[in-house]
Amino acid sequence: MKLFRYGPLNEEKTGILINEVHYDTSDFGEDYDNKFLANGGLERLEEFVINNRTSLKPIPSESRIGTPIANPTKIVCVGLNYSDHAKETGLAQEQEPILFLKAISALNGPFDNIIIPKNSYHTDWETELAVVIGKKGTHISTAESTDYIAGYVMMNDVTERHFMKHRGGTWDKGKGYNTFAPLGPYFVTKDEIEDDGNLRIWLKLNGKLMQEGNTKNFITPVKELISYISDFFGLFPGDIISTGSPAGTGIGHVPQRFLVEGDEIEYGIEGLGVAKNTLINFQKEPS
Amino acid sequence: MKLFRYGPLNEEKTGILINEVHYDTSDFGEDYDNKFLANGGLERLEEFVINNRTSLKPIPSESRIGTPIANPTKIVCVGLNYSDHAKETGLAQEQEPILFLKAISALNGPFDNIIIPKNSYHTDWETELAVVIGKKGTHISTAESTDYIAGYVMMNDVTERHFMKHRGGTWDKGKGYNTFAPLGPYFVTKDEIEDDGNLRIWLKLNGKLMQEGNTKNFITPVKELISYISDFFGLFPGDIISTGSPAGTGIGHVPQRFLVEGDEIEYGIEGLGVAKNTLINFQKEPS
Repeated sequence: MKLFRYGPLNEEKTGILINEVHYDTSDFGEDYDNKFLANGGLERLEEFVINNRTSLKPIPSESRIGTPIANPTKIVCVGLNYSDHAKETGLAQEQEPILFLKAISALNGPFDNIIIPKNSYHTDWETELAVVIGKKGTHISTAESTDYIAGYVMMNDVTERHFMKHRGGTWDKGKGYNTFAPLGPYFVTKDEIEDDGNLRIWLKLNGKLMQEGNTKNFITPVKELISYISDFFGLFPGDIISTGSPAGTGIGHVPQRFLVEGDEIEYGIEGLGVAKNTLINFQKEPS
Repeated sequence: MKLFRYGPLNEEKTGILINEVHYDTSDFGEDYDNKFLANGGLERLEEFVINNRTSLKPIPSESRIGTPIANPTKIVCVGLNYSDHAKETGLAQEQEPILFLKAISALNGPFDNIIIPKNSYHTDWETELAVVIGKKGTHISTAESTDYIAGYVMMNDVTERHFMKHRGGTWDKGKGYNTFAPLGPYFVTKDEIEDDGNLRIWLKLNGKLMQEGNTKNFITPVKELISYISDFFGLFPGDIISTGSPAGTGIGHVPQRFLVEGDEIEYGIEGLGVAKNTLINFQKEPS
């Protein structure tokens, strides 16, 4: 299934994509959140869709698309998980996966504006494959880790490089401003992705291809990441693990190219849909 | 007001402490969460308590006390905000406040057990004053920052030092295991704390005083922290800012003393109450 949520911010309704048509599933009566995932929601939703297939109604065509997961409890990100991107950032690679947390409050719809914060000159994009966790666990073995995957979603791990590297402290500082985590458009269930280690990832800036990669170049594959992360953080239904970005970010271009007001980024991952955001300055942030 | 939540994990009811008696406030009908704070809940609760003062009932004496805030959206922590603690950790001080995020899934009741994760040998305590945010904002000025405070709460920023410093990546790795964020017992409204820059902080390990500090030794005071943090993360009602720990953590003792199964930590901050946790090994983590 390809699930989405639509409607005004914080008032989203649920939906499902079938044969490229966006249908409303509000009558199912549950949001796509951690409770839904923890209580067999995906199986129940599938049954609901089968039983109500002919009465499902398409959503209004002008609808805003929101994040496809409501209120995830955390976003764990993996840093430098593609050797080509590690090289372009100029950062030293670690012996183990680099982990950091992205603020939940940074979540953003896949077609919403991205805000450039005050004093930012190095706001950059990072298109990433993210995993949605479906089951609670700690100290999960690699052999069992796929049991913990509910599905996949695309995230842009928008990053202020200067805040991240030169303002003291951890990477979190450059990763968490409001709107820095566009998520979606679709939460795609596990059964629809044959191999999460072979998906094309791309991003265009104002129509020009900038980022082009494939998850087959992961340093640490999804299976191992889930196991590794669960030694440091308990995983819970609705948690999101974002697996890192391939090369082609703004910092890696010659000359470097960071985002400015009016820029448009469009990006996609094979099987997960396409997102598009426009950059605006912090003065225009909705209050 | 001194607010608390009580009852089994994830089924907590609300309460208020009046003259050292714990009263139930379930009839108020709202949990102490971000919606409550965003919608003038504190003022409405105060009115409810005044109008129902004589009919409030004490809670059962054996009740478990939970976190006093339900479902906060994020925990932003400040590192090395006391010069004495910075020195004992052996970490270099930065020019600017160090910020990192603590996983929400690490939240724990103030009297619940703390779990020592697998392969941990350096689990340590950090008693901290935390601020509860009451109002949404970004790029907040220092002059206005106190308007954004709803109240205060004590947090123990439990830390696995080895995970934090020597496993690659950011501090987050050593800060986020399940139960690593005991919070409470009380969410104390702003009006009850005369000066957040002059509060005694202490911790006893198995009855012996180990940590003894005062928020007057902050490097960056609360007012400035709120302003500073709001340049990197949007602040929202229910967000928690934990302001760092004074000296006297396990890593600073001679010889170093880290937590082991069966240890008991008891700690408090002037005006915010006392908490107590027992350490257990990961094998005993509830599933």
